[in-house]
Amino acid sequence: MSLPPLHDIAHLGYFELLTPEADRSLWFFTQVLGLTEVSREGNSVYLRTWDDYERHTLKLTAHDTSGIRRVGLRAESQAALERRVAAIEASGLGVGWKDGDPGIGATYVFRDPDGHELELYWESEWYEPPSDELRPALKNQAQAYPARGVSVRRLDHVNYLAADVTPNGAFIRDVLGARVTEQIMLDDGTISGQWLHFASKSYDVVYAQDWTGSHGRLHHVAFATDTREDILKAADTCLDRGVFIETGPHKHAIQQTFFLYVYEPGGNRIELCNPVARLLLAPDWRTITWTQAERAKGQAWGLKTIESFHTHGTPPIP
Amino acid sequence: MSLPPLHDIAHLGYFELLTPEADRSLWFFTQVLGLTEVSREGNSVYLRTWDDYERHTLKLTAHDTSGIRRVGLRAESQAALERRVAAIEASGLGVGWKDGDPGIGATYVFRDPDGHELELYWESEWYEPPSDELRPALKNQAQAYPARGVSVRRLDHVNYLAADVTPNGAFIRDVLGARVTEQIMLDDGTISGQWLHFASKSYDVVYAQDWTGSHGRLHHVAFATDTREDILKAADTCLDRGVFIETGPHKHAIQQTFFLYVYEPGGNRIELCNPVARLLLAPDWRTITWTQAERAKGQAWGLKTIESFHTHGTPPIP
Amino acid sequence: MSLPPLHDIAHLGYFELLTPEADRSLWFFTQVLGLTEVSREGNSVYLRTWDDYERHTLKLTAHDTSGIRRVGLRAESQAALERRVAAIEASGLGVGWKDGDPGIGATYVFRDPDGHELELYWESEWYEPPSDELRPALKNQAQAYPARGVSVRRLDHVNYLAADVTPNGAFIRDVLGARVTEQIMLDDGTISGQWLHFASKSYDVVYAQDWTGSHGRLHHVAFATDTREDILKAADTCLDRGVFIETGPHKHAIQQTFFLYVYEPGGNRIELCNPVARLLLAPDWRTITWTQAERAKGQAWGLKTIESFHTHGTPPIP
Amino acid sequence: MSLPPLHDIAHLGYFELLTPEADRSLWFFTQVLGLTEVSREGNSVYLRTWDDYERHTLKLTAHDTSGIRRVGLRAESQAALERRVAAIEASGLGVGWKDGDPGIGATYVFRDPDGHELELYWESEWYEPPSDELRPALKNQAQAYPARGVSVRRLDHVNYLAADVTPNGAFIRDVLGARVTEQIMLDDGTISGQWLHFASKSYDVVYAQDWTGSHGRLHHVAFATDTREDILKAADTCLDRGVFIETGPHKHAIQQTFFLYVYEPGGNRIELCNPVARLLLAPDWRTITWTQAERAKGQAWGLKTIESFHTHGTPPIP
Repeated sequence: MSLPPLHDIAHLGYFELLTPEADRSLWFFTQVLGLTEVSREGNSVYLRTWDDYERHTLKLTAHDTSGIRRVGLRAESQAALERRVAAIEASGLGVGWKDGDPGIGATYVFRDPDGHELELYWESEWYEPPSDELRPALKNQAQAYPARGVSVRRLDHVNYLAADVTPNGAFIRDVLGARVTEQIMLDDGTISGQWLHFASKSYDVVYAQDWTGSHGRLHHVAFATDTREDILKAADTCLDRGVFIETGPHKHAIQQTFFLYVYEPGGNRIELCNPVARLLLAPDWRTITWTQAERAKGQAWGLKTIESFHTHGTPPIP
Repeated sequence: MSLPPLHDIAHLGYFELLTPEADRSLWFFTQVLGLTEVSREGNSVYLRTWDDYERHTLKLTAHDTSGIRRVGLRAESQAALERRVAAIEASGLGVGWKDGDPGIGATYVFRDPDGHELELYWESEWYEPPSDELRPALKNQAQAYPARGVSVRRLDHVNYLAADVTPNGAFIRDVLGARVTEQIMLDDGTISGQWLHFASKSYDVVYAQDWTGSHGRLHHVAFATDTREDILKAADTCLDRGVFIETGPHKHAIQQTFFLYVYEPGGNRIELCNPVARLLLAPDWRTITWTQAERAKGQAWGLKTIESFHTHGTPPIP
Repeated sequence: MSLPPLHDIAHLGYFELLTPEADRSLWFFTQVLGLTEVSREGNSVYLRTWDDYERHTLKLTAHDTSGIRRVGLRAESQAALERRVAAIEASGLGVGWKDGDPGIGATYVFRDPDGHELELYWESEWYEPPSDELRPALKNQAQAYPARGVSVRRLDHVNYLAADVTPNGAFIRDVLGARVTEQIMLDDGTISGQWLHFASKSYDVVYAQDWTGSHGRLHHVAFATDTREDILKAADTCLDRGVFIETGPHKHAIQQTFFLYVYEPGGNRIELCNPVARLLLAPDWRTITWTQAERAKGQAWGLKTIESFHTHGTPPIP
Repeated sequence: MSLPPLHDIAHLGYFELLTPEADRSLWFFTQVLGLTEVSREGNSVYLRTWDDYERHTLKLTAHDTSGIRRVGLRAESQAALERRVAAIEASGLGVGWKDGDPGIGATYVFRDPDGHELELYWESEWYEPPSDELRPALKNQAQAYPARGVSVRRLDHVNYLAADVTPNGAFIRDVLGARVTEQIMLDDGTISGQWLHFASKSYDVVYAQDWTGSHGRLHHVAFATDTREDILKAADTCLDRGVFIETGPHKHAIQQTFFLYVYEPGGNRIELCNPVARLLLAPDWRTITWTQAERAKGQAWGLKTIESFHTHGTPPIP
């Protein structure tokens, strides 16, 4: 079977995050980041960013630990879904079909080699604002702009810690159909970080080497804003509301993302990011490889990478 | 008695606005503009912008009409207050002393020649945030950043309609100690608009000719934001929340203010403005006079002045 | 032959623009927009935006009229190129192969039904900065940021006038593989504007009905900036340098693009645009259709569409 | 003699900076910061920011060392000038009258207790743009917006190193008429930094304790931009042009200034700063005192103060 190198995965759809501080995490996502509550179910609250055309962006679940339970990817079509499920099954990492979460059709569950759980689906209900307050003025917009807290626009990417980056990047690249846009290669040849993309965004999934050698941990999940100034205002807002700022705002050399890293009250690291107007348009993009020496220079404008950035991660889901 | 030409009036302090739609106006000022409620008293709600060091910025009062009841000016010192009260009394436009609103000491009431009521005071309690939520992280800030709606920073200026601009501008200039920074002179020599400032802001009070010949009407009150992008986001927010946008965003040639004009639900015109980083530093500033021909070119980038801008005003207070 | 609906065209590559004011147009593109000169050849100057990974973005050619001679599209692969050339030839609108411009491989020339000339190619040299001044500090960037004039980032889209929108939109959609993301339908059923996209940008090619019934005219070419504030600064810059501003800055309801329209000195309309962080991610996007009544409301925040917007166009190339 | 506490000094006017790398420093100020050359005289080049109403902002002088030779302050009036010269002479720190630099009238030279040289003057020619290119479109603007490099707006403040902060702050406060808006007090009671202002800007002159115990050194001179995003773009520009970035962009807790510190090629530290829309309006402002513990937290969002910030300074002028 020959698989197209790209375009079978449309984009990241949603993720499920666990938190031992459910109330305060809910406050963070709704009042600080500005997500909108969609519905509740058991120990979970479904939340959405205003620019998401699908039903929800985040399933926030009360749990005795923090961590990411699962990331959902939307396929480009039913054929793409079937093609990729076959490839996943062939890889031996498939788990199986299940009913989707609310708004989502048949969903195929699988794991990456490091053990992170992912889902793939095609059918998805488009969001219909249930009230005047949520209804946008312009018909090409999913939901009214919330103007509450950071008002993040959309889910941007997930960054996984993995004991060994290479097989995980290869899995996403070859089995799902992605491309490595940038990576870090240490002096001994180890790939210690890899950024992969499915469509015109320059990355959607990242693997970072887990220095503790653990499996299945989360480094962070990122939400995108419209401008870099939004990230600066986000820092002001987090400062005034007592949200822990780990590092930033600053600009990554890799991908040139403008970033702010905070910990939501449950302990999961959240990135607020702005890719400016960057699009990855080149169909023959060549992977950019950063050396250990280049990395030692710090971020784009010289900020040194903070120690906790290499150690703090959220535990795997048992 | 020789009066200093400037510096006796420190800044605009607060204003009282009347509205026949009290609930919806309150929603507008708190949820759309992001002001914070301080207290209630009778038919009035006291509200504040987050960067105001004084107790309140706006007294919003339910009434059977819209309109501005009064603007409060803070004197630079007790001596400055006394000096200016003497000058006002000499002008024959004084009304008299009264107890100030909450947080404000002895207040002298007077009228400009066109009949708008103003107040002058010196004593003023500094705002103390009553809760953790309102307490800022940085001790050089009055209140936590609200991150709610437009989150306007501070009261910027008041723009009065007046049957005859010249005597009103002269009153503010000579009796209160101000300077005309810019003005419009029609071909027949009539001054049809005048911008006056007390300190380093390039204007605080504006008079615009009332084409209807009425007295005591309000053109608009303006709140300042940090950036021009904030004004663009404000337009997005107003659009999604059904707030009537009259004109803008665009840039005035006069004063180079970036503006958006909306009507709050009670019918009063509100400007959201950004003066960028403009400061009026020159001690020997020479009044800029714009001609009728220059005005006919429209705003800075060519937007034509909208018809209602010359007709819509809020009624005088009987 | 079954063609994939999307993804065979990677993006707009470059365009050739004619100008009767060659020196002043060159000044405009280099000093006002901030493009960089790459090379000269005959009556043409090759210019590039700083974020373009290919050799050049614009071929500016001295001519006795203004107008757009040609737009180049880059295919996703050699196979995609061949597939689409076969489809174009089948449509009867092919012109034939030619050698590409500098940096570009074999190029297939064709016309849309309205007569605009386009090119399709696959091979393309990546830009190598020829000097230290042009070399970027970060290896994932094509060229150093010019910080000169508007410093536009990249070519965004082309907007053609066409006597009849429908067959032209259908040609781009069916023969090249595109999707209509938004369109205007008049009360009589006429499609008077259509926005089409090839990849994750929400549009790349636009057709607008030519009220004069002419064929082959250009409405405008658009360059993208990073932020909306960049567009505001562009307006300031154009104002100070005497560049004619036709309308804006304001926000289109359609596509929500923040825009500024100016005429370059040769008479071609140029849009400076910012799509904010908007991406078209949905694989099952449904065309948004705007009605005549919706269009009559003006742009997003209420600006009325300027008359010249419906009449000014640059002539076809004989 | 009783002196008014404020308002006799209108603002910082200009400064003279020495550089051992005259050509590269000139390139930095004109091409990176976007200043405009006004004239040359001997080893000096006069330069101006676009929003300066006076003739020049910076006199850049070739010299065998770096350092600040002198800062010019403009008095509010002739009477204010005379009043303050008398006070300076009474303090014993006066040097004497001299002819002013081009465009400046009679100038009184003096030193602060730490030995930094300052000047005071009243007469000042307003800038007249000598060419169409420099002439602004709007008559309330000093010069056309350059749109070149960072395009800094105006001189913002000077930050002096001093062996002992307290007597220097007291001199500026009492002899010139200023107010301490913020300061740092160490646990042993030492004032290690003091921010003073003359008018509505929240600071104009800063003293920072010189840990080396030297006299007369410069910490930095700062230029203001319109927005924080301008500072981010400045960082991008400096990165691409090889200008050394010492620290930032980030936000100071003190004064809440958004900052970027770079070294111009001659070795002088230059700050690019944005005070957002912050104005110091309160006539009864109370000095904010930051403790040693508060300072240990780093800057506003947590950035630790860089070591060189406490050691790098430019030498005194012999």
